[in-house]
Amino acid sequence: MEKVEKWGLFELALNGKSDGNPFTDYEIRAEFEGEGEKKQVKGFYDGDGVYRVRFMPSHTGTYRYRISGSFSDVQTEGMFEATEPTGNNHGPVRVLDKRYLEYADGTAHYSFGTTCYAWVYQKEELQEQTLRTLEKACFNKIRFCLFPKFYQYNESEPQMYPYVRGERRGVDEERLKRHLRMTFHTEKEILDITDFDCFRFDVKTFQKFDARIIQLCEMGIEADLILLHPYDKWGFSDMTTECEKLYLNYVAARYGAFRNVWWSMANEYDLTTKTVEDWEELAAAVTEADAYGHLISIHNCMGFYDYHRDWITHCSMQRQDFYKHVEYTADYLDEYEKPVVWDEIAYEGNLSMGWGNISGEELTRRFWEAFVRGGYAGHGETYRNENDVIWWSHGGVLHGTAEPRLAFLKKIMEETPGKFLKQVPRMFDEVVGVPYQTEVARTRPFFDPVVYCDYELHYYSFGRPSYREFEFGEDEKFRIEVIDTWNMTITDTGVHSGYTKVELPGREYMAIRLVRVE
Amino acid sequence: MEKVEKWGLFELALNGKSDGNPFTDYEIRAEFEGEGEKKQVKGFYDGDGVYRVRFMPSHTGTYRYRISGSFSDVQTEGMFEATEPTGNNHGPVRVLDKRYLEYADGTAHYSFGTTCYAWVYQKEELQEQTLRTLEKACFNKIRFCLFPKFYQYNESEPQMYPYVRGERRGVDEERLKRHLRMTFHTEKEILDITDFDCFRFDVKTFQKFDARIIQLCEMGIEADLILLHPYDKWGFSDMTTECEKLYLNYVAARYGAFRNVWWSMANEYDLTTKTVEDWEELAAAVTEADAYGHLISIHNCMGFYDYHRDWITHCSMQRQDFYKHVEYTADYLDEYEKPVVWDEIAYEGNLSMGWGNISGEELTRRFWEAFVRGGYAGHGETYRNENDVIWWSHGGVLHGTAEPRLAFLKKIMEETPGKFLKQVPRMFDEVVGVPYQTEVARTRPFFDPVVYCDYELHYYSFGRPSYREFEFGEDEKFRIEVIDTWNMTITDTGVHSGYTKVELPGREYMAIRLVRVE
Repeated sequence: MEKVEKWGLFELALNGKSDGNPFTDYEIRAEFEGEGEKKQVKGFYDGDGVYRVRFMPSHTGTYRYRISGSFSDVQTEGMFEATEPTGNNHGPVRVLDKRYLEYADGTAHYSFGTTCYAWVYQKEELQEQTLRTLEKACFNKIRFCLFPKFYQYNESEPQMYPYVRGERRGVDEERLKRHLRMTFHTEKEILDITDFDCFRFDVKTFQKFDARIIQLCEMGIEADLILLHPYDKWGFSDMTTECEKLYLNYVAARYGAFRNVWWSMANEYDLTTKTVEDWEELAAAVTEADAYGHLISIHNCMGFYDYHRDWITHCSMQRQDFYKHVEYTADYLDEYEKPVVWDEIAYEGNLSMGWGNISGEELTRRFWEAFVRGGYAGHGETYRNENDVIWWSHGGVLHGTAEPRLAFLKKIMEETPGKFLKQVPRMFDEVVGVPYQTEVARTRPFFDPVVYCDYELHYYSFGRPSYREFEFGEDEKFRIEVIDTWNMTITDTGVHSGYTKVELPGREYMAIRLVRVE
Repeated sequence: MEKVEKWGLFELALNGKSDGNPFTDYEIRAEFEGEGEKKQVKGFYDGDGVYRVRFMPSHTGTYRYRISGSFSDVQTEGMFEATEPTGNNHGPVRVLDKRYLEYADGTAHYSFGTTCYAWVYQKEELQEQTLRTLEKACFNKIRFCLFPKFYQYNESEPQMYPYVRGERRGVDEERLKRHLRMTFHTEKEILDITDFDCFRFDVKTFQKFDARIIQLCEMGIEADLILLHPYDKWGFSDMTTECEKLYLNYVAARYGAFRNVWWSMANEYDLTTKTVEDWEELAAAVTEADAYGHLISIHNCMGFYDYHRDWITHCSMQRQDFYKHVEYTADYLDEYEKPVVWDEIAYEGNLSMGWGNISGEELTRRFWEAFVRGGYAGHGETYRNENDVIWWSHGGVLHGTAEPRLAFLKKIMEETPGKFLKQVPRMFDEVVGVPYQTEVARTRPFFDPVVYCDYELHYYSFGRPSYREFEFGEDEKFRIEVIDTWNMTITDTGVHSGYTKVELPGREYMAIRLVRVE
């Protein structure tokens, strides 16, 4: 009997009807039943008369399945064995305690994302280079688009398209006109090119995404799939609702069984021609089609989407303010009671615009501010170069300085007792995180003596203290480590009791870690 | 006939009664009448049987005066001639158009303040050193306390006291007890030492302040006098209202005729034992006693005082948030319709606490953010050193890196056509200031084409653009200068029309200046 790991991918390929438009004219359904679950999923047409069904078992043991639907006159049944997961297979990422992210097996997911919006649409060599870069980097999530991207620095034609060319079908002409008024593009640029038939997927493109998502999965990297976005000149951002739903169902059937998939309904949803009602309808289509309850969110440009909505599993945020953003992490955790993932906090680079020209120091600072407060953050890199190959959109290699520092922070996060931190109120000039399960004494900063927790991470951001003072009890003992978050050093200052003055180098980006010892 | 410059100091010394307590038992009044004004002022007792009357003429021409009061049984009359001001005598600083500061003669005051809270209470040599430092620095305002300071790094006894010692009188014992509960100090530290008679000024101390304020005036530096503050162990911050008014009247009589005086009712008013009602009563005492309408404000620690109050001429602000503060300058200008003076935005240094350990780069950035938006900012320096001589409180020499950059910004501000800037809405990643009189086209950032003003200062803060683009009209001509605000260079890129791409070094702290040419 075929064996598949729990949270692994079971796939069946079946021949079926290929006349007419198999994407719309026929359907393929499957029912899987194991000892711990019973699920109905849809299959999808993959071209050349081949239909596929994919399934991710969430339990071990024997599964039976039955395939049905109009795609074929033959009914198929079978069995497979789901085995214990091995290696880096920890299952899909889920929400823990309304604040945090962990894999299904209980392993913490410290989400260190990066962004390469259109990397799968680049030339093959560049994609391979991107994968080699990811192999060495600390990122465990990558955010990218299923549709190609047309935008500043993204003006070459992509290597492939999600739809086949021919007669323009499935584009909402009213939306397209509205889109024209909201964009830099000329009417000619957009209207002349949109000859895609949005009822017929180009399966080669989706097969390429299959391969890339699986490669990412093998590397332990979550694929944060951006389903829709506004950077478009082909009509894909202005399809009819019918075609959008066709697409979303196709994507859910095709990628839903990949354990490392997250759904991002949109990048910068508020730059599209769709209304909130449209988005709600489309999100419902995805959650209904997704048999596994993958993480799902929607990403803003200016104002946040209402993350209170039931279907949203986590806040996928872009900073709303140029100056202050990740510093609100604990506020948003309280407000939305969902994990806070800062998917765009400006990128390290030197592009013209402020979203793409902060320093590695500043990007690293933003990561620390987010993580010590119990949130997560995403990286991106936007260094101008001769070939216009920019990591943030095309992938390739990293030119910046932040990534090793993010790896250093990730290592420190992995050492957190009880997995995750929450922020506790202390002095105005420090961010203090403690294990999230810690019961924290309610004291007034400044007026009351500090009650220290067993583990504390103190971050001083752009402040440059040359020392900090601690008032431990005479019978308390704390190991104190001085962390240089930029130079990536951890210096053990020994075990201290009572009043303790810790000398610091008077540089920016320092942290102190306290660990109570017996 | 004696000659005194308009806005200069006319002073009379008269012998009078010295029995009892001349500070409370006798009074001295004067009436001055010139061609343009008629004023009543009070004189003050200066010890050894000498009473003084000081007067600042606000017009040229002949003035007659008459001295009266219980201090003497003799009536004195006389005349003097007020002449045209010379040198750096531009008159006192006043509010211009609810937003800005200028001298009475119409010269712009670009307020570049610094802070040396207790410099006049230090040893003579150190005070002299402070003056030598000020002589070379760009500061045109200095903020300091009339009462001595007891605080972290300020624990040595001062060189003098404002009151004579003896029996403790004039301290409000209830306030003192409340103060004890709000402070780091032990009961012993405070209660043992407060043997000052708050009905009897130590005139030597006030004479020293006379001399220092006059020296500052000669150097063109405004003296932002902090009248009351909470950093105290002598009882001066907890006097009875009676003694507080006695003191404020004394100070108004003594220093009101100095053209370079600003009144700061308090530093960190919200750390004192006084209520808002108390402050209102005390502020009324000052404005009533001040015959000249000097600038007057009150400075916060946590929450701003209500700057809408009629008596307040400008907002003397301390940042309320660790991360974002001067970036709100235009909002506060709109909210309060008064000049915004950021008297505390953290100091360059390396002390333990966040108020005293930012970098010179960051302090300079905060100045730029404030000034381009039409506000003013204050400097301070807090580098830890062996002698605990810290500029912010003691004066001495500067160790930091910001001051030359502030001088550079001041020079750029002085080149503003029409004196001052106001912020105009543009892209999210730039701060753009234009001459405040400019009528600005109402356009939507991003969606509408930019309508450029004749003079624009663009600041990019921590962003690191390697270029910026401008869309001038084909018949518009602009000279574009690239300003490196940290390296203090201005590079003229020539005159441009139409689409213009300006190359930048991809470093932080850059600015661009546009000047329309014919």
